[in-house]
This record gives sequence, structure tokens and C-alpha cells, in this order.
Amino acid sequence: MKIALSQLNYRIADFELNTDKMLSHIQRAKQAGADLIVFSELAVGGYPAKDLLINDDFLIRCNQELKRICESCSDIACIIGAPVVNNNGQGKRLFNSALLIENQSVQQIVHKTLLPDYDVFDECRYFEANREPKCITFKGYKIALTICEDLWDDGVTNSYNGKLQTELSQQSPDLIINIAASPFSYDQYEKRQTVLQRNVIKINAPLIYVNQVGAHMDLIFDGRSLAINRKSETVLELAPFQEDLQFVALQNGDLTTRSPSRLTTQSHAEIDLIHQALITGLREYFSKSGFTKAILGLSGGLDSAVVAALACEALGPENVLAVLMPSVYSSDHSLKDALDLVKNTGCLHQVVPIHSVTSAFEESLAESFSDLPSDTTEENIQARTRGTLLMALSNKFGHILLNTSNKSEAAVGYGTLYGDMAGSISVIGDLYKTQVFRLARYLNRNEEVIPQHTISKPPSAELRPNQKDADSLPDYELLDAVLFQFIEMKRSKNQVIQLGFDADLVQRVYGMLSRAEFKRFQAPPTLRVSSRAFGPGWMMPLVAKYE
Amino acid sequence: MKIALSQLNYRIADFELNTDKMLSHIQRAKQAGADLIVFSELAVGGYPAKDLLINDDFLIRCNQELKRICESCSDIACIIGAPVVNNNGQGKRLFNSALLIENQSVQQIVHKTLLPDYDVFDECRYFEANREPKCITFKGYKIALTICEDLWDDGVTNSYNGKLQTELSQQSPDLIINIAASPFSYDQYEKRQTVLQRNVIKINAPLIYVNQVGAHMDLIFDGRSLAINRKSETVLELAPFQEDLQFVALQNGDLTTRSPSRLTTQSHAEIDLIHQALITGLREYFSKSGFTKAILGLSGGLDSAVVAALACEALGPENVLAVLMPSVYSSDHSLKDALDLVKNTGCLHQVVPIHSVTSAFEESLAESFSDLPSDTTEENIQARTRGTLLMALSNKFGHILLNTSNKSEAAVGYGTLYGDMAGSISVIGDLYKTQVFRLARYLNRNEEVIPQHTISKPPSAELRPNQKDADSLPDYELLDAVLFQFIEMKRSKNQVIQLGFDADLVQRVYGMLSRAEFKRFQAPPTLRVSSRAFGPGWMMPLVAKYE
Repeated sequence: MKIALSQLNYRIADFELNTDKMLSHIQRAKQAGADLIVFSELAVGGYPAKDLLINDDFLIRCNQELKRICESCSDIACIIGAPVVNNNGQGKRLFNSALLIENQSVQQIVHKTLLPDYDVFDECRYFEANREPKCITFKGYKIALTICEDLWDDGVTNSYNGKLQTELSQQSPDLIINIAASPFSYDQYEKRQTVLQRNVIKINAPLIYVNQVGAHMDLIFDGRSLAINRKSETVLELAPFQEDLQFVALQNGDLTTRSPSRLTTQSHAEIDLIHQALITGLREYFSKSGFTKAILGLSGGLDSAVVAALACEALGPENVLAVLMPSVYSSDHSLKDALDLVKNTGCLHQVVPIHSVTSAFEESLAESFSDLPSDTTEENIQARTRGTLLMALSNKFGHILLNTSNKSEAAVGYGTLYGDMAGSISVIGDLYKTQVFRLARYLNRNEEVIPQHTISKPPSAELRPNQKDADSLPDYELLDAVLFQFIEMKRSKNQVIQLGFDADLVQRVYGMLSRAEFKRFQAPPTLRVSSRAFGPGWMMPLVAKYE
Repeated sequence: MKIALSQLNYRIADFELNTDKMLSHIQRAKQAGADLIVFSELAVGGYPAKDLLINDDFLIRCNQELKRICESCSDIACIIGAPVVNNNGQGKRLFNSALLIENQSVQQIVHKTLLPDYDVFDECRYFEANREPKCITFKGYKIALTICEDLWDDGVTNSYNGKLQTELSQQSPDLIINIAASPFSYDQYEKRQTVLQRNVIKINAPLIYVNQVGAHMDLIFDGRSLAINRKSETVLELAPFQEDLQFVALQNGDLTTRSPSRLTTQSHAEIDLIHQALITGLREYFSKSGFTKAILGLSGGLDSAVVAALACEALGPENVLAVLMPSVYSSDHSLKDALDLVKNTGCLHQVVPIHSVTSAFEESLAESFSDLPSDTTEENIQARTRGTLLMALSNKFGHILLNTSNKSEAAVGYGTLYGDMAGSISVIGDLYKTQVFRLARYLNRNEEVIPQHTISKPPSAELRPNQKDADSLPDYELLDAVLFQFIEMKRSKNQVIQLGFDADLVQRVYGMLSRAEFKRFQAPPTLRVSSRAFGPGWMMPLVAKYE
């Protein structure tokens, strides 16, 4: 039996586009003589469709598209993810389902059993869980048809009850198929391989895993669909971050492929994956919102330089406008460093000094402020003047404003709301400052993109004379290490102290982290590349006592 | 048996404060000779604690406070809500539990069976559901101890499986106790009464319902705890929007009270409840964040006038600074109307004209904009100049900036991100413009607070000469009616058209609503008074095809 793995990039609610893509893969799979083609989770409608799932028109359109797909399934069968209405009269209105289409109609349906509801996932909001897991039968083969989280009951990431895997293994399937929509994080691929291999052993069958690719707002999908044989060997891996269609054969009780060259032999270093993910996230955000042009403020510092370089790569330098907005506190080298970046990348640029505007603000407020000393108020005015200038250019010419904050800053609130925290999408907001340095060096792997001086000089917001980040913040190596424990490792203050970090430092960082909740609430969506990003994966009360 | 209903206002994670309040009520209940005191859902730790629930220090502190409460429970028993660790080795880490404390220790525990995961609720993110509902026994009485949603399996709001109520009724309890944390919306109280009365009949026992009071960020809690006898009559109702402690007796198989005067006889009109809710929400947001002073921009228009009046009532006029920021497009009457509001409320005010700043912006951008005609860019510059001035005053003097957008504007994107959409909390962002008019008239019920001309003049943003809202938007009566169908009624476009609204209008409104998702993503938290507010109850994809 020949099986096609279809790894596609869907746009949420773009029914015709999505179906057209699927029909094209069905056609190619037929021509290749495949018996079955497998699409990813919720391929119909797109994942995550969020509250569109409670919109009746959305569900009607899903069913219309399913009919079109059924019609094309002559001489080939198809497994596809779609929302299916729950007619049991109790529980949530929908199931998250996998449908087997054969002879142009839906023949068997399996609903998702394990619904993730943690981190960025909220599937219990929409879906009722399946309580009767069963195998489907196709061409005499018994297939354990599962959906994403169904195979993640590993007792490590998640502790469900182990029941699903036990029941499936008792039915002795010939094959496991898992259709997924599994968001990228830089440590996800290895976890995923391990989890899938464990399922091969536990359920005792080879496995086909089909993931989607692309990005939706904050979530990035790496694809890398897999076929794993009974020996837990990966016999096929689809391309990372790209659409792909590949074939695998189920014969003599195991999965094999004629093209072992499809196997990824190059190692995907963490920083390489992060780079590919951010390019994908950025490109998809623009193409799926119907925009082509980006704007950003270029300070001469590291963060905006890295974002500019990524934007040039994702969108083309001709679509990226870098705006240099020097103030009286900007150092000479800042303007030079920024112009070097412009030269290196070939992006467009403008210089708009901010002094006349900040002076006008300060004069307008002079009476109110009387003789009070300068403080962060005046620094924030500079940042908000820049934000307003960028938004004005964005409004006038139709650019999307890129936010250039990093995760360390977002964590401790080292940024100005409506100023440098403005933007439609935060590009590196899930990278700690130390990771931004690593990414900068990676971007320079072949030639200088990020000016060397931008990397080597001490980080500074340049909002007052001789300001350095180190005046207000702990050393980034240390700060990021503590933040990582709080955020990704979900450790509490006492637990972090027990790891050996200085108690005062831990208390100080925790205080900054907590006090910045109100700022993050209004931050733009952030491209997620870690296992825990700010945004839907980090839901903290704004009004609470943080000790 | 005498039972105390303790309706308290908790602060999330403020363990000592919360416990001290409870200990004081325990003391008063003891003095009154009560056998049992009942606190609300998750009283220990506070509700909603969100991701603090995955923090070990938080859980350790909850247990410490539970011990303090146990110690005080001599000569009285107590029922209290707290998170309890799930030691079953599978499922979510916690239960949302009700504990019976007797003789200074926890004697019986019941976990919540029905976990809400819709609208603003995401309890499946944290809690494992109970699968073995059972009654507890206290002083020989069998008590069906339930937690909030457990009684909401009404087949209307929610369709679970009816199993919990059936099992409880089969155990023939003497009393139902429901501990709750049930957020206010203006139509919630009647729904709640109906649902609770149905439970009295179905389970066949009188019912005690204890809700919390106060507010946490967007969510407002109205209290109004209840005792309902076997005839479905409300024999006791605690104060709305205030802490309260009242007593009820279980004797001769039914609930009775000696103080029928506690019964709410006055009708609580919708607008009266909304008014009380907003005052509570505003006051609590400030007190729980440790702030006293508010700032807002006062335009002379309706929205900012209503917000200023509410703030004066909630915080005292001496703590409210209204900033009048006229531009060349401001009409003469705007300044007069704003000053009339200042006079009527007694709040502080400043006048800061924006012309010099907007001119400086326009000059800085003159080269970039060359001879392009004026458009919304220049309007947004005015709004962002005002936002920056307000934030500067807020930063310098420690005010919280109040956002003055209404729900109609937020819905259709009629507002400037980082401009008039700025602020720490949106006060009337869950009220349609037509409701803001109603609230203004209500505020004037005794004397003129909102200047008559502010109410009678046609709404205008005054960002260009002779601008009126009606130039860009449908008539508010019509707009709000369509929005209500989309938002509160969750109807789809075709369903709204089938109600008889003009198809072009419905399409136009749906288009505006969808295109504004990206703005709402960065909006401040909004005091929730309807059954569906923007924020956590409205989760839409930003990047999707909205037809």
C-alpha cells in the first residue's frame, strides 16, 4: 500500500485556497499511484481557528469544502482533519476529528481523545473528547488513527491515563497514523521524535506523522512530517518549514521508502532552526494578512539590526523601510552602525530626527512639570515620539510596523508601552538578549550583515547621556539564566534560589517580571520559538499581590 | 443548624489579607453561634489566579493559609474553596476543591466536577475534573457540596450530561451548598436565580449559594449570595457588590431566616447594576494595584465625560485629573462642555493644547509625506499626541491612565492604537454607544453630572473639520443592534441577515469588526459587564481570511 504524506501551509478560513492546495496534492498522489493520502489536523478550516469555530457560517463552509474534497477522492482514499459537529446532545459542540474518505464519501471518523489545554493550547474551549478510541480499517489494514496530542501521553510532557495507547495496542494495528498541527519550538523536534518512537514501541506498529507547515500569527509550524518503521527508525522526513509531498509504502508489515535521500542528514542546529522559524513566521504574517511592506525603527543597536536583517531576508530588502530617528542622546556611532546595516542589507531608509517633537512635548508639559527633575518620563517621551513617527509612516504608506523588543526586555519591562513596544508583530520577542547575540553571529556566518560594532558595543537604550542597559539590569547572561528558570522551566522563586542563584538577584528579577505584566498585556503578538513565550502561553493576573 | 454565608472580596495571592478577612468572619460567625461558615470558590489563593496556579510557591502558601484557617475552626466548621494537588498520577496537577474543615482539620474534600472552559473561563487549563460526585456529611446532615459550574448543567447555557445532578438527587441530600466565583454580567443574576431554582427542584433540597464580591482586572463579582428554600423561594440574599456576612438556619428540613428584611425588594434595573459594577471594577482595579490617582483625556464628548464621572465616584474627584487637549479642530463647545463636566464633578483639570506638537510631527514628516493629501494619518497623529501627553503626566505623577473607548468603537476599530486606545484599563469598553447614552442619563438621575450638551450633540471625534461619527459609521442604534447579534448572540453573518437586517449593512459591519482584530489585540483590559466582552471571552485569529 502506497501512502502519500501531504504537508501543506493552510490559511485559516481561506477555504478555497486550502482546498485547491489539497486537490493538487490529491492529483499528484493519484498520478504517483498512491492508495491513500494523509493531510494534517484540522486541515479543513485551518488550525488554530479559535472562536471562528463557534461561528455557524464557518462550519457550513467546512462542510462544503469537505464535499469538494470527497468528490476528488476517486481511485484514492484520504485521511483529513476537520471539525465535526457533536450530535450527542451533551458536551462541547464539536469534535476535532480525522475522517477517512473513500469512494468519494466519508466512511469512517475518529475523534481526538486527548485535548491539549496548557501553554498555547485551549482545545477544551471548543472540542469534546472522544471516549471510545478505536482503529479504522482500510484495504484490510487496521490503522490506529490518532490526532496530535493523542500520542503525547508520555508521562513526561503530559500525564493523561495511558488508556488510549493501551487500548490501541490491544487492537494490534498494522499502522499508526497521527495527523498533527504541532507548533515549532527550538526543542520540539527531538521531543517529538522521542515521543513518536515510544508510541511505535508501545503500540507495536510503524507510524506515519503528518504535520502542517507555515505560521499563524504567533505560532510557527515546522512540518518535518515523519514515517517511522517498526525498529523506530525514521525512514522518511519531509522538508522543514516548506510544503512537501512524499510517499511511503506499507509492505511486509513495515514502512519503507525508495528514497532514503529524503532523510535529513544535516544536523539542524538550534540557532539554524530559530532562524528558519522566524523567517517563516514573518513571511507568513505578511502574506496571510495581505501586506508586503515592513517598517521599523533602526537605532544602531543589536535588536533592531537583527529584526531588519530578518525582515530583509523574509520580505526582500526593497520592502523594508528602516527609519533612523536620532536624538540628542544618540551617539555618533549609532547613526554609523545603523547606516552600515542599511548598506549591508540593501533596505530602504530614512532619517527623521526627533528633537523638534520631543522639545514641543516638553514645552507643552513645562507648566505641568514645573521644575521637577528629568526621569523616565522624558525617556518615554522619546520612545513614544519614535513610535508615533513610525506609525505615521506606516499609516501613510501601508507598512506593517515591526516590533524589535527582545524577550529579556519584555520580561523585565525594559521598554516603553506605545513607544518601542509598538508594532503589529514582535519578531524576536521570544529570544533572550543572549540568543539575539547568537542569532546576530549566525546571520554573519557567510558575510557581515549585522555590523561588527553593533555586536561588540555594550547594549544601550540611548535615552539619556551615557546610558547602558547594565545600569538598570543585571548582566544579560545572568538575567537570561534566571528568566529561563522562571519562564521556560516554570520554576518558582524558591526553586530558582535553590538552584544556587543569588537570592537577592532572584527576588529582584521576579519583582521586575511581575511588575511588567501590565505592559505585556498590551504587547503585540510574538513569534513563538521557545517552549514558553509571552502571550497565550503565559497567562498571569495583572491585579494580584506579587511578593 | 445555623449556617453563615461569608461573602468576601479577595485579592489574588494576597494570602494574609484574605485569611485575615476570613478569620474575622469566622470569629463573628462563632459569636453568632453558627455551626458552619461557608466561603466562596478558591477563596484560598483567590480566583482567577491563572498561571500562578502552576507556581509551586503559590501552592505552598495556599497550604500554609489553610493551616491558619484550620486552627481558627474550633467550635465551628467551615466550607472553603482551595486548589488541591491531584495525587492520582494522571491528569492535570490540581483539583478545584471544596474542603470541609471540622475540629481544626480538613475532614472531607469534594472536587469540582464540571469545569467551565468557554467565554472567560479556562479551568481545564489547570484543573482535573472530579469523576465521582458524592455528598458529604456534617452533623448528621447529608450535604450536596458543589462548586459553581457544577450546578450549571441546565441544557441551555451548557450541555454536560446531567449525570452530576442525577447522582446527587439519588443520594437524597438535606441541603445543597454551592460555592462560587461567578462573574457579573448585567443579565447574569436572573439566569443564576433560574438555574439555582431548577437545581432545588431537580435535586430536591434547599440551597445555599456563596459567591465572592469585588473585581480582578476585567472580571467583576457581584456577590448576591443566596439561600433558597424547598419551595424555590429566596429566603436570603446578601448585598450586591459589597462584603457581607449573613445567617440562615436549616431546620425542619428547610432553610429559614429570621431577617426577611435582608431580601432585596428594590428592583435592580440593568443600568443600575451596570453602574454599580463599573464603580466596583474601577475601585478594585486601583486599590488592588496600589494606585489612587487616575488621569484621562476629556474631550467634551460623551465617552470621556462618563468615564470621568465614574472615576470621580469610584476614586473621589480629588484623585481624578482630566486633561483637556484641544486642537485646531476642536469646537468651541467642546472646551465648554468639558469644563462644565469638571465643574459638575469637582475633578482636577489641566489644559494642554496639542497644536505645537502635532505641527512638530508634521514638519518632521513633511519631506517623507511630500505633497500627499491629509488622511487618517494626520488624525492618528493627533490621537497619539494626546496619548503621549497623558502617558507623560501619568509617568511623572503616578496616575493610572483610564481608557475611554466604548464597545461600538472597539468593535469597528474606530479608534487609534497607542492614541485614544491607550490606557491601563478600559472603563466603558464593554458598553455599546447606545448604552453609554443610557448610563449618562442615569448618572444625571438626581442632578446634572454629564452636561446636557454633551449628551445632546452628535458624536464626533473632532479630528478634522466638521467630522461626525455618522460620516464613517452606521447610525449607532443600528450598528449596536448588529454588533450585539455578532458578539453577545454569537450569530454568524448569514444568521444576522436572516433576522432581517440589511445584508449590505451586515457585511459592512462584519468587515469592520474583523479588520479591527489586530487593534483589539493590543487594547487594555476591559471591565466586563456583558455576557461577552472583548478580551479573553473573544478569541479570534488575527491572521485569517475574513470574507
